[in-house]
Amino acid sequence: MGVNYFRRDTRDTKFVLFEHLKVDRLLKYERFQDFTVDDLAMIIDEAQKVGREVLGPGLQDGDRIGCSYADGAVTTPDLWKESWKVLTENGWLAAVCSPEFGGQGLPAVVGGLVNEIFNCANMAMMTYTGLTLGAGELIEAFGTEDDKARFVEPMYSGRWSGTMCLTEADAGSDVGALRTRAIPGVDPGDPRIYKIEGGKRFITCGEHDLTENIIHMVLARIEGGPAGTKGVSLFIVPKIWVNEDGSLGEPNDVFCTGIEHKMGIHGSSTCSLSFGEKGGCRGILLGEPHSGMAKMFQMMNGARIGCGVQATGIATNAYDAARIYAKERVQGAPLTQRHGAAVPIVQHEDVRRMLMNLKAGTEAMRAFLAYLLVNMDIAESDPDPEVRKQAGARVELLTPLVKAYHTDFGYNLTRDAIQVFGGSGYCSDFPVEQAARDIKILSIWEGTNYIQSLDLVGRKLGLDGGQPFQTLLGETIKFAKANAADPDFAADFGLLEKAVGVAGDFAKRFLQYFSSGRASLVPMYSTRFLECLAEMMLARLMLEQGLIAREKLAGVDPASGDGVFYRGKIASAKFFCRNILTNVFSRHLALQQEDLSALEIPEEAF
Amino acid sequence: MGVNYFRRDTRDTKFVLFEHLKVDRLLKYERFQDFTVDDLAMIIDEAQKVGREVLGPGLQDGDRIGCSYADGAVTTPDLWKESWKVLTENGWLAAVCSPEFGGQGLPAVVGGLVNEIFNCANMAMMTYTGLTLGAGELIEAFGTEDDKARFVEPMYSGRWSGTMCLTEADAGSDVGALRTRAIPGVDPGDPRIYKIEGGKRFITCGEHDLTENIIHMVLARIEGGPAGTKGVSLFIVPKIWVNEDGSLGEPNDVFCTGIEHKMGIHGSSTCSLSFGEKGGCRGILLGEPHSGMAKMFQMMNGARIGCGVQATGIATNAYDAARIYAKERVQGAPLTQRHGAAVPIVQHEDVRRMLMNLKAGTEAMRAFLAYLLVNMDIAESDPDPEVRKQAGARVELLTPLVKAYHTDFGYNLTRDAIQVFGGSGYCSDFPVEQAARDIKILSIWEGTNYIQSLDLVGRKLGLDGGQPFQTLLGETIKFAKANAADPDFAADFGLLEKAVGVAGDFAKRFLQYFSSGRASLVPMYSTRFLECLAEMMLARLMLEQGLIAREKLAGVDPASGDGVFYRGKIASAKFFCRNILTNVFSRHLALQQEDLSALEIPEEAF
Repeated sequence: MGVNYFRRDTRDTKFVLFEHLKVDRLLKYERFQDFTVDDLAMIIDEAQKVGREVLGPGLQDGDRIGCSYADGAVTTPDLWKESWKVLTENGWLAAVCSPEFGGQGLPAVVGGLVNEIFNCANMAMMTYTGLTLGAGELIEAFGTEDDKARFVEPMYSGRWSGTMCLTEADAGSDVGALRTRAIPGVDPGDPRIYKIEGGKRFITCGEHDLTENIIHMVLARIEGGPAGTKGVSLFIVPKIWVNEDGSLGEPNDVFCTGIEHKMGIHGSSTCSLSFGEKGGCRGILLGEPHSGMAKMFQMMNGARIGCGVQATGIATNAYDAARIYAKERVQGAPLTQRHGAAVPIVQHEDVRRMLMNLKAGTEAMRAFLAYLLVNMDIAESDPDPEVRKQAGARVELLTPLVKAYHTDFGYNLTRDAIQVFGGSGYCSDFPVEQAARDIKILSIWEGTNYIQSLDLVGRKLGLDGGQPFQTLLGETIKFAKANAADPDFAADFGLLEKAVGVAGDFAKRFLQYFSSGRASLVPMYSTRFLECLAEMMLARLMLEQGLIAREKLAGVDPASGDGVFYRGKIASAKFFCRNILTNVFSRHLALQQEDLSALEIPEEAF
Repeated sequence: MGVNYFRRDTRDTKFVLFEHLKVDRLLKYERFQDFTVDDLAMIIDEAQKVGREVLGPGLQDGDRIGCSYADGAVTTPDLWKESWKVLTENGWLAAVCSPEFGGQGLPAVVGGLVNEIFNCANMAMMTYTGLTLGAGELIEAFGTEDDKARFVEPMYSGRWSGTMCLTEADAGSDVGALRTRAIPGVDPGDPRIYKIEGGKRFITCGEHDLTENIIHMVLARIEGGPAGTKGVSLFIVPKIWVNEDGSLGEPNDVFCTGIEHKMGIHGSSTCSLSFGEKGGCRGILLGEPHSGMAKMFQMMNGARIGCGVQATGIATNAYDAARIYAKERVQGAPLTQRHGAAVPIVQHEDVRRMLMNLKAGTEAMRAFLAYLLVNMDIAESDPDPEVRKQAGARVELLTPLVKAYHTDFGYNLTRDAIQVFGGSGYCSDFPVEQAARDIKILSIWEGTNYIQSLDLVGRKLGLDGGQPFQTLLGETIKFAKANAADPDFAADFGLLEKAVGVAGDFAKRFLQYFSSGRASLVPMYSTRFLECLAEMMLARLMLEQGLIAREKLAGVDPASGDGVFYRGKIASAKFFCRNILTNVFSRHLALQQEDLSALEIPEEAF
């Protein structure tokens, strides 16, 4: 068994929930009325315990032992079985799901931060529960009563797992190019049953040994259906057929033909699946024919936020490893006391700068995640339809930011964590090089980060006539102006105000590019726009936290645990604005060059 | 055997050598008078052939099979033996060495670019030759005639290999903390023979099966010597003792106790070595007692430039893989032709942006490397002592930039290469995820990148009263001003001129910080200063290349091979200035915040 490096603290998680975002306000909603703030705090503590005792021990095994494939079967590391048992039997998998199907009914923000802790402990393991949850929610949302009765409870309880099967060898980012076919009329008694034929690739958790059955959510084209994404339908395709009474039937001609060898997440099986090779694969149409893309997008949106959760978890694990190592590792003297004795490297200026980057970075990522998820809870449960609508629009607007920014930024943070360790960081004894390898997938799956930037520019900016975007900028600038003379954060609010201006200018220029026949400039800069908007939001949230921390600090002993935490939080807010938010301005300068050299260059010059 | 992905083109290498830096001017030096330009071009072509036919086939094997350890012995992949044979028997290992000891006597710039091609093919393999060369050069520089006769030729010819043994478990960045002891008086006939006792860690190529002997260059403290780096001496410690007549004697009590499991470069053995465990290890003192650090620094300087060579090679391999894949992989339509047919992804705007980043980035890295190495050739061989001195100072000034900037930037470029591949980039079938894993070590070894920034600020800025630094800025600003109204590059020269101002302001502020008791601000920003200065240099060199390419383009068919190359080069120059050089300004804004939050935060808040 590998070393368990999980040393996660929950103080920041609780600060975000209870001091910053004040999630007690969610408990007034009917749906959450049975929870108290104490319940939520206890759940966070329990999650930490599961991370430490159950998931953390499997992190290195997942990497070293990984998954193995033979004759259609995939074997996961032994510790995976124990993790699956605890996550499902204790209700963690379905923490945010409806109690009607065995879920716990927790607010999304609490479920999300619990998941962030679990992903901090062992992200590869959490792909199995995450996909099961997502697939189960799809059936709950779009299935018939019969579908729900047959599939949802067994999935939420972890008896069966789930997948999403979109990608094919020649249909990745271009999902509409898929070739998997659905042939109607195979069951005279049930027109919703189709014969499924085709191959899928890169299917996460597509085959494994954790559950007795796997429910695949498969995108396929019904014979004769329209080309492209408009002709895509969604099917429930069990690995083993499920009889109407819920019992297991015959194997459903779904075969795993191999798994990928990957840079990281070795414990998460990435499968090639063949459906209907022997002509015996049946799928159940979910909802109307040709409505598959829209439905899959519901799952995809959750999965995109999930990427932000995963990235925050992994980056925090890397930070935890680095901060603990830096306090233990004694070597050399700081630059400014060059001839002094050797000290723990946490006292070296540059190590501290890197730790600060990791601290401020992960806290900001967590704050943004939680902010998004609180809005999701409001959008789903507030009694006021206008409030629900506004919160929902904000979730839509910000989802691509959390997906893309967190995953790229998180990857960069793991680089700093490796650097804190020096040569040891490059070795597998410590978890930081694994963190860099594991986190890298997140910028690719669930829609590449570039696709997120197109979603932001093409769909989200113009949502409701651009009002959600303008409101976001407006309230941020108001916040910055109101605090422009703050005794501690004046410089930071000054930078924030300018950053809002930058975000606004990006959007204005993009509109001009679209309307003036210069649309090809947009993809040159859309990723950088997404990054600017994300950093504006992260800085804003960090400054909100900084103000709260300063106020609270006034009431506690500065040397106490809380005192130290609040002082650290104030430093995080400043560091983020002064060292990370500043990147906004170089991106803006780049935009002003309106450079098309990448498109003007002859293709053969590459 | 793994797939051979080596598809390297030599056009840019030849452009740098013969059109940009005009290395024919080096051939007037006595030392190089036997070479013609055609010879040098032929050597580049031959290097490409060796990369393709000999080194490239071993890249994936190195990663997958890697090195294995048992009972003190290390086994390398089979293909390593063939690579070693070709590299040594054909004189590649000693390409830049003195003919007196069997070297080829090539200019450093040619040797460096040959090595860049070899590192592009298989960097892990090249660690064995690189360290042998470095260790041999140390003995050639500081050994007695007898030492040279015994060791140098067998090393340059590849019969024996070499290492540098600095690091110990508790002495990494703080080399002076080492504990390996040297006890005098073990051989009454030769006072230079010492008994060596101690353990070294992270010794690259410390044990392997490629050669009959390994010559370790070991840093140790002579008993009773001063503490810290001032008491460090350098010893030649053969794995198997070498008799005075050059024949092999008894094993010298050097034992490999294990190898590291690492993120990448699995084919390069990273060893823990125990010297004198049985009391029978002898070393030969090189030069005076306590002079080891200065000597090791000579090797280290070469190794630091070597890091830049390695990074450029790996990043170029990632670029080659990405550009070829992007031309072959057909999927989806570009954003601006959304409803068009599927096209090779090289036609997608964002893929092109990433390829352009890789192209401009690797070309700029190569240009800077070559520029540094030409200066090294001038510093060593120009008849005019003043010219030699100035070129030497420039090499000293720029070495930390090539080490740190290239290795961090190269790591970022591999990220783009992975992204071009999408999910396939995360899989081990293609070489890009391996590139990210292999390249990461370079920011750590040979002095971490932070140490490079301290070297720049603490030693190199003030060299010769600051004159080399000021000269560099002065001539760059002159170049920018002279071209401020250029019809194609006016914007770029404008950015360059401002960037020089930024670099100057960083240096000015650092001086103020040192003199006003605010030195702790320096390590907060020294890495960013190094990056600014490096990007200024890269942009300058790319603009030099851009002007040359434009001039040459006027004389050729724009659709010809050369025409396409020159058009691509013009695009690279613009892209670099407008998308990468622009980062200088955010770093400058960050500097102006003079943020010390990372030092003010209580340690317990981490």
